[in-house]
Amino acid sequence: MERYYFDWAATAIPGNPSSIHHTEGKAARQALEDARNRCAGVLGVKPDEIYFTSGGTESNALVLFSLLTKTRRLAYQQTADTASSFFIYSATEHPSIRENAAMLEQLGIPCTTIGVEQDGRVSVEKLEKTLVKNPQTRMAAIMAVNNETGAINDIKLLSAVIRKKQKNAIHIHCDAVQALGKIKFDLQNRDIDSASFSAHKFGGSRGIGLLWLKKPLIPLIRGGDQEKKIRPGTENTQGAIDCADALERLSQTEGYTEKQAALKTINCAETGAAQRMKAFFELLQTTDSFIPVPSGRKAEDNHYSPWICQCAFKNKNGIIIPGEVMARALDEKGFAVSTGSACSSAEKKRPVLDAMGVDKEISLGGIRISQGYSTTMEEIKMLAGTIITLLNTL
Amino acid sequence: MERYYFDWAATAIPGNPSSIHHTEGKAARQALEDARNRCAGVLGVKPDEIYFTSGGTESNALVLFSLLTKTRRLAYQQTADTASSFFIYSATEHPSIRENAAMLEQLGIPCTTIGVEQDGRVSVEKLEKTLVKNPQTRMAAIMAVNNETGAINDIKLLSAVIRKKQKNAIHIHCDAVQALGKIKFDLQNRDIDSASFSAHKFGGSRGIGLLWLKKPLIPLIRGGDQEKKIRPGTENTQGAIDCADALERLSQTEGYTEKQAALKTINCAETGAAQRMKAFFELLQTTDSFIPVPSGRKAEDNHYSPWICQCAFKNKNGIIIPGEVMARALDEKGFAVSTGSACSSAEKKRPVLDAMGVDKEISLGGIRISQGYSTTMEEIKMLAGTIITLLNTL
Repeated sequence: MERYYFDWAATAIPGNPSSIHHTEGKAARQALEDARNRCAGVLGVKPDEIYFTSGGTESNALVLFSLLTKTRRLAYQQTADTASSFFIYSATEHPSIRENAAMLEQLGIPCTTIGVEQDGRVSVEKLEKTLVKNPQTRMAAIMAVNNETGAINDIKLLSAVIRKKQKNAIHIHCDAVQALGKIKFDLQNRDIDSASFSAHKFGGSRGIGLLWLKKPLIPLIRGGDQEKKIRPGTENTQGAIDCADALERLSQTEGYTEKQAALKTINCAETGAAQRMKAFFELLQTTDSFIPVPSGRKAEDNHYSPWICQCAFKNKNGIIIPGEVMARALDEKGFAVSTGSACSSAEKKRPVLDAMGVDKEISLGGIRISQGYSTTMEEIKMLAGTIITLLNTL
Repeated sequence: MERYYFDWAATAIPGNPSSIHHTEGKAARQALEDARNRCAGVLGVKPDEIYFTSGGTESNALVLFSLLTKTRRLAYQQTADTASSFFIYSATEHPSIRENAAMLEQLGIPCTTIGVEQDGRVSVEKLEKTLVKNPQTRMAAIMAVNNETGAINDIKLLSAVIRKKQKNAIHIHCDAVQALGKIKFDLQNRDIDSASFSAHKFGGSRGIGLLWLKKPLIPLIRGGDQEKKIRPGTENTQGAIDCADALERLSQTEGYTEKQAALKTINCAETGAAQRMKAFFELLQTTDSFIPVPSGRKAEDNHYSPWICQCAFKNKNGIIIPGEVMARALDEKGFAVSTGSACSSAEKKRPVLDAMGVDKEISLGGIRISQGYSTTMEEIKMLAGTIITLLNTL
């Protein structure tokens, strides 16, 4: 049958998934739900636990700001000197946790960081200390993989600690943006309540992200009934399809265990990424100039994602080369590396490294090398070789 | 020069606009800024007043929730019976204003609606009354074109009323999602502070929107330095480019005045949309069954966008056909129309029509017919003819 479209105020053809009265809307809804089912399939969770957002930053903010809807009465009644925080988060979280925590604090929701050890990871000891000091904690956020150092937190262990200590219900959130498709990370074997993912970090397009919620929460931002009222705004169907495609591609890459019932991601031990990172370390460790950050990181080290390496370099005079200088010198040779996170690149501050107690000089010398799905052993060896050559000239 | 990419933790190739240390990042930044310049060019504003968001809903929420950062001290000190609201908004606003106002209210920011007349428009009288009653108003939101009725607010006139009455600085926000590319609407000749736009409503892709801000505001949601710290999250460069493409395409369609210095959108009086809507009205007015909503809307009427028509129908027995029944019957004949907004389609409530004082029966009978850039005169005549045929069977 010829079709005539008169719902342009909702959206252009091919239709708005929330236009429930016509064929185009229903087809768009079907396409969106297919994408959701496929994402859930790869993640090993139920489709109705998956919410599409505009990215990892929004997913994180959505969870954090639900605290305003949940604890506002408590918060407003609190006096300034109330001892307990409501929200605790590891000191090395991404700015989309850290800076929103600062905003929550301004709005009267007391927040506290969970200190990390020098290795960049949250320890049971530091977590327990924070929990004891903050008996009113309602939410905790601990990232799976740090975006600047690759440090892997033992989410399963840490969530068990939180569950054991809790008197109030504590929502455990995990920013898994740098974990999905990179390290072994599954949602079933971790006792957490929510996790954030960003499609462009695992091969999808930008402007689309996932939020996994074990149970629905009460969001702050409203504006429509989309995504079961958790995330308003016309659904980005094409973004969702791209996201599902990227996840399914991931599940077909090397090291992927098809029969794995839980989250079917690449086990870092099995992938080329670990071998390439090992080669990078070994080549650079032939010099005295290489300073991994943290300094204790080994060539093969299960505590770090092999996809990310933070490191600094001394020149031939033993002086640490500023990260910006090294990054620009590498750029001139054709190699793109960064210093900190792109999300805070305009600032020279390095709060993640500061939280780990990294020496200021090393911190300013830090660059971040991160691999992707198309990185080859040849490329990483060329990178190491180019760095070694540069050490003599910088 | 051969390039080697080691910044995958930021994003995949072609690069993250906020990765400032390498060629790929700089190229991505250039692409994003080109898109911004092109959008600003069509809108006739400065590029640094344009912020990319994930859509109209987010643009509206971003502005509204800045009230939490601005007035929180005042709000927290207020007692429950404080007379004045801080935020006033027209009673027919989109859910992304209306529902967020309800949330602001819950968070201690008092909010009040500005009543609309039966024609669905904010009158000077009602606005003045609201302003007098709420001397502490800090923000006002009045939409340019209503998404359910097409009612056009005289933003220029209304903003002048606000400016005249204000004792405090009042931020005037305009949801222009249904205006851009549809009716004559320019940002220069309206004394407003911000406006929201959604790319998929004017031919761009979903997941990208624009926020125009005369001056930067202090946002609630943080997480990165992107978009000058107004809107965090990795920039959706491709979405921004699509958005700029769509805006430039718009500016090349019928009725577009190339030399117009201000916002170069289609003047509704000049377009085929008005002629098609006139034909639709005239065909249906040959029956006694056609009830435009509001009832005073004429075949040619400058107070309504010709792209949107809300209307109800009586069957041959004089009984008003429920909107859902009509929408489904039309769908079976190949015509896609909606009832309310897709953003609230799951609910049977019609708060916009209620605010206008539309009879309950007519309200439940309302359907929304909205045209788009590819709608033809033939199509709209076929729609009218099909409706007339259906009136005898429903």
